[in-house]
Amino acid sequence: MAQRIITLTTDFGLSDAYVGSMKGAILSINPQALMIDISHSIRPQKIEQGAYVLSSAWPYFPGGSIHVAVVDPGVGTQRRAIALETPAGFFVGPDNGLLSAALPEEVRAGAPEPAGSVALPQGYDAVSLTNEAYFRHPVSATFHGRDIFGPVAAHISTGVPLAALGEPVGEIIALPPFRARRQADDSLRGRIIHIDRFGNLVTDVRAQDLPQERVFIEIADRQIAGLRPAYEGEGELVAVVGSAGYLEIAVPNGDAAAMLGADIGTPVIVRPTV
Amino acid sequence: MAQRIITLTTDFGLSDAYVGSMKGAILSINPQALMIDISHSIRPQKIEQGAYVLSSAWPYFPGGSIHVAVVDPGVGTQRRAIALETPAGFFVGPDNGLLSAALPEEVRAGAPEPAGSVALPQGYDAVSLTNEAYFRHPVSATFHGRDIFGPVAAHISTGVPLAALGEPVGEIIALPPFRARRQADDSLRGRIIHIDRFGNLVTDVRAQDLPQERVFIEIADRQIAGLRPAYEGEGELVAVVGSAGYLEIAVPNGDAAAMLGADIGTPVIVRPTV
Amino acid sequence: MAQRIITLTTDFGLSDAYVGSMKGAILSINPQALMIDISHSIRPQKIEQGAYVLSSAWPYFPGGSIHVAVVDPGVGTQRRAIALETPAGFFVGPDNGLLSAALPEEVRAGAPEPAGSVALPQGYDAVSLTNEAYFRHPVSATFHGRDIFGPVAAHISTGVPLAALGEPVGEIIALPPFRARRQADDSLRGRIIHIDRFGNLVTDVRAQDLPQERVFIEIADRQIAGLRPAYEGEGELVAVVGSAGYLEIAVPNGDAAAMLGADIGTPVIVRPTV
Repeated sequence: MAQRIITLTTDFGLSDAYVGSMKGAILSINPQALMIDISHSIRPQKIEQGAYVLSSAWPYFPGGSIHVAVVDPGVGTQRRAIALETPAGFFVGPDNGLLSAALPEEVRAGAPEPAGSVALPQGYDAVSLTNEAYFRHPVSATFHGRDIFGPVAAHISTGVPLAALGEPVGEIIALPPFRARRQADDSLRGRIIHIDRFGNLVTDVRAQDLPQERVFIEIADRQIAGLRPAYEGEGELVAVVGSAGYLEIAVPNGDAAAMLGADIGTPVIVRPTV
Repeated sequence: MAQRIITLTTDFGLSDAYVGSMKGAILSINPQALMIDISHSIRPQKIEQGAYVLSSAWPYFPGGSIHVAVVDPGVGTQRRAIALETPAGFFVGPDNGLLSAALPEEVRAGAPEPAGSVALPQGYDAVSLTNEAYFRHPVSATFHGRDIFGPVAAHISTGVPLAALGEPVGEIIALPPFRARRQADDSLRGRIIHIDRFGNLVTDVRAQDLPQERVFIEIADRQIAGLRPAYEGEGELVAVVGSAGYLEIAVPNGDAAAMLGADIGTPVIVRPTV
Repeated sequence: MAQRIITLTTDFGLSDAYVGSMKGAILSINPQALMIDISHSIRPQKIEQGAYVLSSAWPYFPGGSIHVAVVDPGVGTQRRAIALETPAGFFVGPDNGLLSAALPEEVRAGAPEPAGSVALPQGYDAVSLTNEAYFRHPVSATFHGRDIFGPVAAHISTGVPLAALGEPVGEIIALPPFRARRQADDSLRGRIIHIDRFGNLVTDVRAQDLPQERVFIEIADRQIAGLRPAYEGEGELVAVVGSAGYLEIAVPNGDAAAMLGADIGTPVIVRPTV
């Protein structure tokens, strides 16, 4: 047994039989697999959101874990199916940018907007999943999670090496990293990249890019001065460094998204002075 | 240990403690049980939807798996509780048609509309769950998932034979299979039987009943000519054979249910010519 | 291995990476942990609802199970983080009343409204989680589920004794138990404390407090005479003893909450005569 943890990140939802039948296909190959749901509530076909959620979760899993991600608007078309081996583990899914969540941020920084090929760095290997011996048959044209990605992950968990799964590829599709842009006046211009269950607004401003001394934030015609150490100040609009390492706008015990009418894409500006 | 996989298909939802306490009751009997959620989001009391989801998932699980299904408007009344052993595994739940998802389609075809008794075929055995030694006590009148079905499944997973669980029964309640009707003009008249998370419309037209050469589909005053091999044609209304083997109407990267205003029951007509 | 079952009750929802990354943090410490979701759909920051759901589920788990609960509006502030060992198992979470779900009802009855300290009874031990050696580092100020509560539970599951985790504490914050008040005329005045997925209204009237002979119930200008043994009487407004041991108001195959326009807090009166 190489490694029995298989995580699942999809846009399949929890109402249909999709997740269950994918898990059944995995267990039919490796009854010892330990499957952990990261999320099945990625908005349908939203690759960027899938990559964000995957990148927020996989670093917390043991080394060698196998991460399957399926947000796959191109299922059944010519897009490649790939498996990626990294120093942290394995990633299996469509080659549409989703799996670039596994790459170092500096590598993703080389990708064109909104997505494009990057060369894999040292220590990262990928294959195009062409060896149908590791698929479930017959292969549906519309459900590769059950028939390709799940089964391939299950075979990896039984010790099948990457090289057996298909042809090596040297580059994969990547999404550029979330990163606010620094302006000539030293301000950062960013945007909301995720809204969590509590209505907290996650921005693309990284903690390490924040001004050292003072922080002034503008969002949706509101201003926030300074960071709080945690979600303190019930009902107030506050800024904190969130658990994924990005600046967050929050209303403790409230809902910042609702208060501001903000959505994914809403601009945010961070300045070192007023 | 006979078989440690126990799948769960219910209408319990995920907000209450129902699923968790059923799992606790199972683990209290067999701490080695591997419980896999198929869905807990069956619409409340919708037996037919539960049977559809169960029948879409169980064939992908290893032989010998134990499938618990609870959509149970008659809980606490005179409806029977049953366990069924088939060549594929075990099924445990109320005898209200839900478990007929485990029967061959030709057997279900013998059931009256909307549901009724069918004789079990060769190789299928069932018992009425009357041996209270395998229940959790006290038995609530309103929650047999926790007190009867979960515990019985757990005991099966430890090797308790079907015959120990209660009295043999030769017939169970079945739902007729989903199947569009062929008309005198050779068209098929069917209906929408399921809407998935992506807004794809699953019909009761089986892949093997589709015309060989050309296909013309009418739904909600729209016409579709021909099948696509996959969800191709962003924003267009298309027809594909879906992963469960039925004709589906979809809008790639869109939502066919919303575009057409279609719901479960909406008629669909398939013709070999225009 | 002391005990490998770890249950999770949170308000994290299922869309974000929160639950997945907490599970990853647990598996990184104990790859043998068996994690069972009770619910992640507690309404955001609703401690009382979290305690209700937890108290409805934990009694059904094997002795020695470890129950992690995180509904934590005070994360990152001065509220204590605690672990509690009881005759039934372990409970880990913020000291804000949530974990009083683990205490006997007579102990909770000593807590002031709406919440306050109670002394732990014989056989119950608690520690303040101050030993950072058992945390994940760096500790986020906003996500103690991943960085403190999950890791501490994982360490308990590997056999780390409570005493190693921090300083003993003799009292914890408790919520008073749900209990309708008896009036001078022998009626019970209670309220709706939970609405389940089926629209059933769970009241704070305990089964053992109901009148022995006849029961007359008033709720939202409607009257109900007598109890049904189960959810019988399709479409009618009925009263039953629910699976958690409280009086429930239900509409079999319907939705009592919708029919009555009732919500959490809606008053209910129970009389032994009309």
